Amino acid sequence: MSYNQLINPKSIVIVGASDNILKPGGSVLHNIINGTFEKELYIVNSKGGIIQGIKAYTKVEDIPQADLAIISIPANQCIETVDYLANKKGVKAFIVFSAGFSEESEEGAIREKQLIEIVNKAGAIMIGPNCSGFFNTNHQSIFTRPIPSLDTNGVDIISSSGGTITYIIESAMRIGLRFNSAWSIGNAAQIGIEDILEYLDKEFDPETSPKIKLLYLEKISNPDRFLLHSSSLINKGCKIAAIKSGSSTSGSRAASSHTGAIASSDSAVEALFRKAGIIRCYSREELANVAAVLTLKKINGRNLAIITQAGGPAVILTDALSKGNIDVPELDKDLAAELKKHLLPGAAVSNPIDIIGTGTGEHMATCIDFCETYFKEINGIAVIYGNPGVSNVAEAYNMLDKKIKTSKLPIYPILPSVIAASEEMETFVKKGHVNFTDEYALANALSKVVSWTPPSVGKIEDISVDIPRIRTIISNSADGYIDSETVKQLFDAAGIPQVQEIVTANRDEAIVFADKIGYPIVAKCVGPIHKSDVGGVVLNIHSANHLSIEFDRLMKITDTTAVMVQPMLSGQELFIGAKYEPTYGHIVLCGLGGIFVEILKDVASGLAPLSFDEASSMVQSLKAYKIIKGTRGQKGLNEKLFVEIIVRLSIMLRFAPEIKEMDINPLLANEERVIAVDARIRIEK
Amino acid sequence: MSYNQLINPKSIVIVGASDNILKPGGSVLHNIINGTFEKELYIVNSKGGIIQGIKAYTKVEDIPQADLAIISIPANQCIETVDYLANKKGVKAFIVFSAGFSEESEEGAIREKQLIEIVNKAGAIMIGPNCSGFFNTNHQSIFTRPIPSLDTNGVDIISSSGGTITYIIESAMRIGLRFNSAWSIGNAAQIGIEDILEYLDKEFDPETSPKIKLLYLEKISNPDRFLLHSSSLINKGCKIAAIKSGSSTSGSRAASSHTGAIASSDSAVEALFRKAGIIRCYSREELANVAAVLTLKKINGRNLAIITQAGGPAVILTDALSKGNIDVPELDKDLAAELKKHLLPGAAVSNPIDIIGTGTGEHMATCIDFCETYFKEINGIAVIYGNPGVSNVAEAYNMLDKKIKTSKLPIYPILPSVIAASEEMETFVKKGHVNFTDEYALANALSKVVSWTPPSVGKIEDISVDIPRIRTIISNSADGYIDSETVKQLFDAAGIPQVQEIVTANRDEAIVFADKIGYPIVAKCVGPIHKSDVGGVVLNIHSANHLSIEFDRLMKITDTTAVMVQPMLSGQELFIGAKYEPTYGHIVLCGLGGIFVEILKDVASGLAPLSFDEASSMVQSLKAYKIIKGTRGQKGLNEKLFVEIIVRLSIMLRFAPEIKEMDINPLLANEERVIAVDARIRIEK
Repeated sequence: MSYNQLINPKSIVIVGASDNILKPGGSVLHNIINGTFEKELYIVNSKGGIIQGIKAYTKVEDIPQADLAIISIPANQCIETVDYLANKKGVKAFIVFSAGFSEESEEGAIREKQLIEIVNKAGAIMIGPNCSGFFNTNHQSIFTRPIPSLDTNGVDIISSSGGTITYIIESAMRIGLRFNSAWSIGNAAQIGIEDILEYLDKEFDPETSPKIKLLYLEKISNPDRFLLHSSSLINKGCKIAAIKSGSSTSGSRAASSHTGAIASSDSAVEALFRKAGIIRCYSREELANVAAVLTLKKINGRNLAIITQAGGPAVILTDALSKGNIDVPELDKDLAAELKKHLLPGAAVSNPIDIIGTGTGEHMATCIDFCETYFKEINGIAVIYGNPGVSNVAEAYNMLDKKIKTSKLPIYPILPSVIAASEEMETFVKKGHVNFTDEYALANALSKVVSWTPPSVGKIEDISVDIPRIRTIISNSADGYIDSETVKQLFDAAGIPQVQEIVTANRDEAIVFADKIGYPIVAKCVGPIHKSDVGGVVLNIHSANHLSIEFDRLMKITDTTAVMVQPMLSGQELFIGAKYEPTYGHIVLCGLGGIFVEILKDVASGLAPLSFDEASSMVQSLKAYKIIKGTRGQKGLNEKLFVEIIVRLSIMLRFAPEIKEMDINPLLANEERVIAVDARIRIEK
Repeated sequence: MSYNQLINPKSIVIVGASDNILKPGGSVLHNIINGTFEKELYIVNSKGGIIQGIKAYTKVEDIPQADLAIISIPANQCIETVDYLANKKGVKAFIVFSAGFSEESEEGAIREKQLIEIVNKAGAIMIGPNCSGFFNTNHQSIFTRPIPSLDTNGVDIISSSGGTITYIIESAMRIGLRFNSAWSIGNAAQIGIEDILEYLDKEFDPETSPKIKLLYLEKISNPDRFLLHSSSLINKGCKIAAIKSGSSTSGSRAASSHTGAIASSDSAVEALFRKAGIIRCYSREELANVAAVLTLKKINGRNLAIITQAGGPAVILTDALSKGNIDVPELDKDLAAELKKHLLPGAAVSNPIDIIGTGTGEHMATCIDFCETYFKEINGIAVIYGNPGVSNVAEAYNMLDKKIKTSKLPIYPILPSVIAASEEMETFVKKGHVNFTDEYALANALSKVVSWTPPSVGKIEDISVDIPRIRTIISNSADGYIDSETVKQLFDAAGIPQVQEIVTANRDEAIVFADKIGYPIVAKCVGPIHKSDVGGVVLNIHSANHLSIEFDRLMKITDTTAVMVQPMLSGQELFIGAKYEPTYGHIVLCGLGGIFVEILKDVASGLAPLSFDEASSMVQSLKAYKIIKGTRGQKGLNEKLFVEIIVRLSIMLRFAPEIKEMDINPLLANEERVIAVDARIRIEK
């Protein structure tokens, strides 16, 4: 099986070609004729005749040969046709538009299976069925429109929904994105997203391959392969941004009805994307804007200069960047004063730099030069330039074109006059540029890009976790929740700090232990399930005398077999949890404890095993991260240790797939320490 | 002073008209000539000649007369010209484009003052200086472009930034908004946003006046007038959406440099908008989308049906609506099965209703009919219909046009094929419709609109707050923080529940009190400032004996004059604060206490006095609201009482402007009670 005949066919046959361009078989013919394909094109229609100016064969038997076949006939005729083409006409690539397969009925599912068998047996490749097609710079075998500007350095897009691919392209074209290829996978009977990623990964050439991939997904059938190839592409220099929809309950029902997606938890998706280094988006326009940012030079920092012809959008942009933790720093006063000399009266130079409505392309260029040469703190430049009726926009856009091409800093063009300056904008975009029409959308996209963290796949941190001991403990444990002593042993083996404690029925032993760890301490009865309800928890015991009295009282409580003594710890409650999700493995969750987890659901997720960077990015993505970091007047917690514990736990899980769910709740943390106080682990072999 | 000559001039003179349409004086002439104005137009240019086909007068002395003068000459010539026109040529309305006034220099500020004096003395009205102009359906006296479709039922827009007004119009035109008027107020020397709102308010005719107003603001000079007229307009049936930029630190600096905005705290703006019933937006595209939602029928509920031709965007939309608390409920199975009979094979009817790519306008119409007639739970319909190359879009959009006009439910058209079906879309929009090109943007705008709460201005809730007593207490208090006894009296007068406490130097008295309120209790020394540091706080005292010992110990602490005894309360910490902000009055803040206020800054704000609805909306807008409301497994707090306390406090503040800042921190709340435990009040007379 090779992708060659799909990627660069020497001949194409359309089976089911039509004169009616509102039919897939007519529409695809229209697109191919008006596209870049100039090799052999055959069309088949049972009625024969001339179709869109081309002579039609009445049956597939009559065509000479074909590399690629586009199938647009009723589902019940597909098997026979594909069979014939694969075995008699040497077709090695199929694009099957036809619906009526697994998406529709049981009968259709059987038909789909037969189709795959034929294709596999012939060593051919098949996109679809129930897809809208494929295009690249060689041929546009897709029945939807518009066909965007094609460019071998453009974007690759893969989508599990045919309509969506088109609508993403519409959003993307508006801001100037160019495309290298588009893959509508339909039912993904043979070729799914993972296969295409694998193909792109294997064929990747750092010199010639395009670097930006966009995905629209409703399900991820094989997370491991998905992870392997997406992260590999990213490690080779690609960037991937993706929408995975169906995150809400109703959205998940909608996705299931649309592409038969089986709900994977949204935290699993978040975890997978984090590990792969994929930028997650939630709307078509966001995806397009993120892709547009990715086409520009990399920004090395979070300080932006804004050069604008209108004050308002610059203020809106400054607010929005600030929300995304990108700064618009005040510029050096002396240098700014120097710059002001080159601008019109009324110009402002504090950043935003406002060259005012009548400011010209020359003024803009001078400001860009100053940012490049003198304002050393600046990492990127946003230029807002429209047409309020009083400026020569064409001239200014020519200048901007030059500056973008020569500047060492990334320059983000915000050209808001989409109607009044539509021609000038089009000319500008045709020179190879993107254009952000809304400053807020740019700020949002840019903040996603600067917050990107690289993939961390397959990396197990070099940190002392005693795997053999963990395996022994797990092997010796039965199914169900394991006892607290075994939990303690597992955590010891993983190097997770735990509260010191003793469980004893001997009062003197308890007192010796308490003297050693120091007062105040906590004593709890062991045995009763609802300890608090039976008065079995005593906090804040200050002396041996006090402990002695309480020990005796606790031992008298029904069902009590022993007393547990722990130091009385204070601190912020933290939470770490994990669950095993089929096909994904262990999803590790972290957050602040108590209401933060239970009510506010402020939880980040990652896929085990986690790297330090990955665990850090989890912790830092929490809405309540400020509490961990601390702020003026409030000390933070030992973040480094919290991250380390998450990593240690994830390594333990990596080697203990029998652990199906677990949590440490709470860990108690302050500036110095993070200690696991209570934990539950459930094993299922 | 009347707006008549501005709104509907019988004659216009442009002073400084030019042949160069890249100059304001040339651009505005171009716009007027190509616009709707067909009465007398005079132009003045010192060089005379024919300008854009019109004979120019060389001096203002030569023109016959004019109602409205557009001034586009250097700042230093404005005074003389305006003076002459106002006093010799009967001009009653001025639009001054010229810059070089208060925005530029001290000298310019003096010039601006002279200008206002002349205009005021002549009983004339002036927009500007330093503005881009004004347009309505009568004349387009603005120098920016594009001029949008004009419609006396269209949107009114008022902006403190000329460039921004144009860019908002660009965003709005793309989705089909029409405009009734646009006001670029520039320096707002005479006429500011408040004045225009007053004018629109006074002239409002429920039959003929347009109902949607959009604002772009960087400052609000007179919050009282702003509130009065914006809320009055809303109470008369208008909707107002506004961007107030400059909310971040850098954004505020940017705004100050742009329009000289004096930073008002963002909480003051939030409070003002809440009271006025204004929908706050943060980007141009968001503002345009909110306005577009407002042009459609009112939605009475939060249940949406989605009818779509493509699965993907429907799933994205469902997710996004869910985020905004709008539901896409599953439809009645029997009725849905009935509907399915009318659709193509492969269609899905669970909601989203997917009529599939080849679904026609007829199919869409049938689905709309079912939503209207049978699916009783549905409050509104989103229709996603594009052009994947296989449907007759023009026919479908004709059908959609009819359905929108006749349906009782609001229908939100999402037509994503902005390029492939641009002509069909334009035809659709020309019939008077809006179009949301991105489903996520619709979801966001719709959720803002359904969360709208009406104005609550001037309403003091009928609730027992003892104003005379509050006045007496305040009158008798000196500047500075007032003592805890006075705080107690104020709260008594306001009806705010407080923790019971005694402050005494007499041990027996303390014990009698403790016996009365019941143990456990808390004892604190009175006198030392940092009580905890000197060991002056004892929690959890369980018996008279224990209290007796601690009492004696506390009294021995240096500076201690007495001991305060309170019941030991538990519960969730809440916070209420207030600060007096010049021109705004008291901003009341509420939130959860501790880290929620201090680190997470999760605080809502409102303007005193607050209505119950307003205080409720504050509480419900908290990110941590779920903690107050409770969820499965966690009991909520007494929200009603919390709201009541906020209202009571706000009424007290309304009659005690001498209180410059205060907070109650914490209040302790559980399911039954909310009690103020500690409070500080600072008075400044």
